[in-house]
Amino acid sequence: MSAPTLTLARRLRASPFETRSLVGARTASVYNHVVLPTSYRSLEEDYWHLREHVQIWDVGCQVQVEVVGPDAYEFIEYLTPRDVSRCQVGQCIYTPLTDENGGIVNDPLVLRLAEDRFWISLSDSDVMLWAKGLALGRGLDVQVFDPDVFPVSIQGPKADDLLSRILGDGIRELKFFRFIETTIADTPVVVARTGWSGQGGFEIYLQEPGKGVDLWDALVAAGEGLELLPGCPNLIERIESGLLSFGNDMTLANNPLEAGLDRFFKLGKAADYLGREALEAIAAAGLKQRMARLVIEGEPVPNPRGVYSIQGTSGEVTGSLTSVAFSPRLGFNVAFGYVPTADAVVGSVVRVDTPSGVREAQVVGTDWSLG
Amino acid sequence: MSAPTLTLARRLRASPFETRSLVGARTASVYNHVVLPTSYRSLEEDYWHLREHVQIWDVGCQVQVEVVGPDAYEFIEYLTPRDVSRCQVGQCIYTPLTDENGGIVNDPLVLRLAEDRFWISLSDSDVMLWAKGLALGRGLDVQVFDPDVFPVSIQGPKADDLLSRILGDGIRELKFFRFIETTIADTPVVVARTGWSGQGGFEIYLQEPGKGVDLWDALVAAGEGLELLPGCPNLIERIESGLLSFGNDMTLANNPLEAGLDRFFKLGKAADYLGREALEAIAAAGLKQRMARLVIEGEPVPNPRGVYSIQGTSGEVTGSLTSVAFSPRLGFNVAFGYVPTADAVVGSVVRVDTPSGVREAQVVGTDWSLG
Repeated sequence: MSAPTLTLARRLRASPFETRSLVGARTASVYNHVVLPTSYRSLEEDYWHLREHVQIWDVGCQVQVEVVGPDAYEFIEYLTPRDVSRCQVGQCIYTPLTDENGGIVNDPLVLRLAEDRFWISLSDSDVMLWAKGLALGRGLDVQVFDPDVFPVSIQGPKADDLLSRILGDGIRELKFFRFIETTIADTPVVVARTGWSGQGGFEIYLQEPGKGVDLWDALVAAGEGLELLPGCPNLIERIESGLLSFGNDMTLANNPLEAGLDRFFKLGKAADYLGREALEAIAAAGLKQRMARLVIEGEPVPNPRGVYSIQGTSGEVTGSLTSVAFSPRLGFNVAFGYVPTADAVVGSVVRVDTPSGVREAQVVGTDWSLG
Repeated sequence: MSAPTLTLARRLRASPFETRSLVGARTASVYNHVVLPTSYRSLEEDYWHLREHVQIWDVGCQVQVEVVGPDAYEFIEYLTPRDVSRCQVGQCIYTPLTDENGGIVNDPLVLRLAEDRFWISLSDSDVMLWAKGLALGRGLDVQVFDPDVFPVSIQGPKADDLLSRILGDGIRELKFFRFIETTIADTPVVVARTGWSGQGGFEIYLQEPGKGVDLWDALVAAGEGLELLPGCPNLIERIESGLLSFGNDMTLANNPLEAGLDRFFKLGKAADYLGREALEAIAAAGLKQRMARLVIEGEPVPNPRGVYSIQGTSGEVTGSLTSVAFSPRLGFNVAFGYVPTADAVVGSVVRVDTPSGVREAQVVGTDWSLG
């Protein structure tokens, strides 16, 4: 069966960059009710180009929730097991949000714009409704709203070259997960050294949607001679770079401990937060499964649509493959999946039940080395 | 620019009917993180067929939020200005949900499964997060969760003929907005006389996702000789039938009074609800704009992606066109849009700013008659 064409309707919120970014997009998806291009040339061509040059990405789908007011800081702490106290104004922090069961609601980046003002830059779930509901229910003195802010991303090894042409060489000194407020194309923007690839780059937050095309065109003009092309988060690259995708690699049914997000926080932060009791109970009981990087040799394995269950070495099945792509550089399939905890060690070999048969998968470290 | 192909990923939740329903789907969208087919043949062919025969629709994207527990009834009342007290077990009720500003969060159907157990059958926003957040924040004694229930819809004038072949002639007596619990294809289902067309039919709620294909195939088998075809909510038909679409015709930025949803409720119900003060203030101040049915004669107007603003007879611009389709039966464009309140009377002629120029639009009544 051939894949259907995406219908654009008013219900799908238009990114301010859409009239530019959809030109040449071969495939797309919907993310936070916004259209997200998913490939331009082929996944492989986009991948090689991203690793070698620089791309402009319409990530308007990373919509923001603004939280502002006297209780804003306390409320942000309440939403996440991560300790937000060390996040200063001008910093971003990756914050898995949890519900009362310790399930992952979203895994946004939080930008601290002022002591009492934050943007929650979302992966794919309506956190505005979640945060509004909680804040209203608890009677907190905060405003929670969608500020109509849309990011565009510049990713790839030449990203610094590109942006320094607009903002000067100072931008090269911007540290990882820091941001500045400035102006590009006569429109105020927040520029952060962040982005959903491992190739380096920036996310540029547009605050005046009517200036989206101007901002896009200014960035494209600055890319002249740098082999700039439109691009998008790339399945192969993001798996290789170890970037988990909310909705693919973890959902509300997963907790951040089994997803391995506890490398970003320690249980037991001082501030009150939702899900503390649940996470402490989960930790005390011991994890049944853990997210692992997996290598599957041989033929390409299609990215799972249904459940490709994973059987551990003891025969136990706890979870399934969550993302996979064939790496043309490494010559094997790189994948993420939940394996029984006992198998979450480099060198363990598990069995993945794919539509084209059972395949062996080896648990590997962060360098994808088969050892 | 040609429209991109929809990428299927694990992040887009698979409807249990997807392996059947995507066969032959030419276009699709994403709704509540689930793929929704939007056309099979052409919009016009699908339209005529729906009016004359019977269709099977994969509306798995109408996901449910289950609310159960001692405070469930009180909580449902709290979510909506509509009076839920008259909704008995076995009944469905259309309930616009409002936030603290009176903005529309969603416009679901609520099914009362027991005195203290409800399904909220959603249009396109994550009401589970909203309801969970509110219930947690307020410390209510309810459980709020996604019960993994997916509807399939049988719509069209032969729907009763089809379903009576499976459930017997008794099903013909099921009243509008009532449901029964029964079994089809050896799987328990809820069958409701509801659906997102004006042609009559049923929505059948599957509770065992693993039995989705069996249920689909049983319904298709029962359609033999009835010219059953796969279909989907049809843009032309749903506008003609006066069915507003959340996200298209109203959003959180609209209140239910201006959207005309107050025909379903009176302000001032006895039970406490969120948004009461805001809606009373809006009503007291008078509405600036109202949703209207509009006829635009001449060439087809493309369904709006951007803003097609509407200028009232006094020159005032308050809102825009929200949905439009050319009706091959009526021979003109049928549309919804927000007009200045003074123009919300049959016969008023407003001006719509479309990408192909300014077009006149006449406000009409529910029969689309030009008078």
